[in-house]
Amino acid sequence: MKYQEIASEITKKKTTLCVGLDTDVLKLPLHLQGRPEGVLEFNKKIIDATHDICVAYKINTAFYECLGAKGWEIMEETLAYIPSGIFTIADAKRGDIGNTSTMYARAFFDQLNFDAITVSPYMGSDSIKPFLEFKNKFTIVLALTSNAGSADFEQQKIGASDLYELVLNTSKTWGTHENMMYVVGATKAEALLKIREIVPKHFLLIPGVGAQGGSLDDVLKFGSVPDVTGLLVNSSRQILYASSGEDFAVQARLEASKFIGSNLTQKTNYTS
Amino acid sequence: MKYQEIASEITKKKTTLCVGLDTDVLKLPLHLQGRPEGVLEFNKKIIDATHDICVAYKINTAFYECLGAKGWEIMEETLAYIPSGIFTIADAKRGDIGNTSTMYARAFFDQLNFDAITVSPYMGSDSIKPFLEFKNKFTIVLALTSNAGSADFEQQKIGASDLYELVLNTSKTWGTHENMMYVVGATKAEALLKIREIVPKHFLLIPGVGAQGGSLDDVLKFGSVPDVTGLLVNSSRQILYASSGEDFAVQARLEASKFIGSNLTQKTNYTS
Repeated sequence: MKYQEIASEITKKKTTLCVGLDTDVLKLPLHLQGRPEGVLEFNKKIIDATHDICVAYKINTAFYECLGAKGWEIMEETLAYIPSGIFTIADAKRGDIGNTSTMYARAFFDQLNFDAITVSPYMGSDSIKPFLEFKNKFTIVLALTSNAGSADFEQQKIGASDLYELVLNTSKTWGTHENMMYVVGATKAEALLKIREIVPKHFLLIPGVGAQGGSLDDVLKFGSVPDVTGLLVNSSRQILYASSGEDFAVQARLEASKFIGSNLTQKTNYTS
Repeated sequence: MKYQEIASEITKKKTTLCVGLDTDVLKLPLHLQGRPEGVLEFNKKIIDATHDICVAYKINTAFYECLGAKGWEIMEETLAYIPSGIFTIADAKRGDIGNTSTMYARAFFDQLNFDAITVSPYMGSDSIKPFLEFKNKFTIVLALTSNAGSADFEQQKIGASDLYELVLNTSKTWGTHENMMYVVGATKAEALLKIREIVPKHFLLIPGVGAQGGSLDDVLKFGSVPDVTGLLVNSSRQILYASSGEDFAVQARLEASKFIGSNLTQKTNYTS
């Protein structure tokens, strides 16, 4: 999928919502519990209930890997079930020396045909560049994450900048806004202004809205790119587990619909 | 497996060798090419040929994920084939927010029963601590890697220290030498002295010997822990692809045997 196609979907659907399929086999509604196939059935119903009011799905690989080879199959089948025109992200946080990153890129871009993958920048340029060689795919680099541990290293000063700012400034030279995005935790909305000075056009993938406590209003206010919006706002648990009963899909849709807004593609002033 | 058990294996076998099963389906000997099962057959013959002269196997998950669900099965079967008493590492470079890291830990420690997993420290404490909660398992944190990209962030100064030194100093407080190890690229042997001042007892997993150009002598000279050795020296390509013919296992054993030495557990002075 291309940059402008994602922007058009956002305009059309009036939402930046990315539904996170972090489906925990232990948290399924009672009638689906007790077998890995329940995860696939659950995912399909969530996709049925939300695909017309979201622009992306993010599949968190950890929740599938913990089910073994069967889990990997369920991930493949979930991905295949997502209608075309919706952006698909492998939330995999991969990254290794060059020849290994090439293998990860093949796994997620060729073998699985995701549109994007999240990667960790710790090992530097040659751990990320192999992902950028794939056409019409996006590499989503961790910048500032939403968890408490982001203070340990990401927010440590290197010269006058935090490490995450160095990551943005350095890595943006490896690709363009047409093949790279960044992960920015929504719980750090005040940092969005600073981040938009460094990467004014890149899409930002924003986890941490909902269960992790971030504010959607702040994200839209401080993070939007004029005309494009340039944001994918992820929500996982708030949507997936809106109800633990047989009405889970109906309730998931209700939660997802809260992300629909009329002013998403307006020009925004980057002031508070 | 416990710290002292690994040390005992090193003493008994007179080697610190970890064989990296980064098995590339495209680089198999001709008679095994063309089908994913060839990877399993290849791995079994490599294990048969080396298990009495190595102390660990490191399975690089990327090379299995690029084969899809079948690849994950082959990874499971390869792991199951490794004789007990040999330390097993999932070289997976995982790490995410807490609830996701817990899922990765379950995937590799419970579902797959690896002894250890490699993790990226970028996201900080709560991305790593969930792995440390598993008994008799090791979490191997990336510190200083062997690739050129390690200059981009790992070797950037935070105050008076490089980022990788901050990672060592901070993360060593989250566990002990009995449940944590560190990845240190062998191509940075001169840094080993500095690293041993920070983590005098932790095992170091050293990739980059062989194809990546590191020196085994330097690693043993500068990185050994008295009596324990405290090193796992990984070699992948040099061993796996020692021959592209039907004699690949025989040649792999010859390469592996070059890592046997008589002085590995001697006390070493940390001077050049």
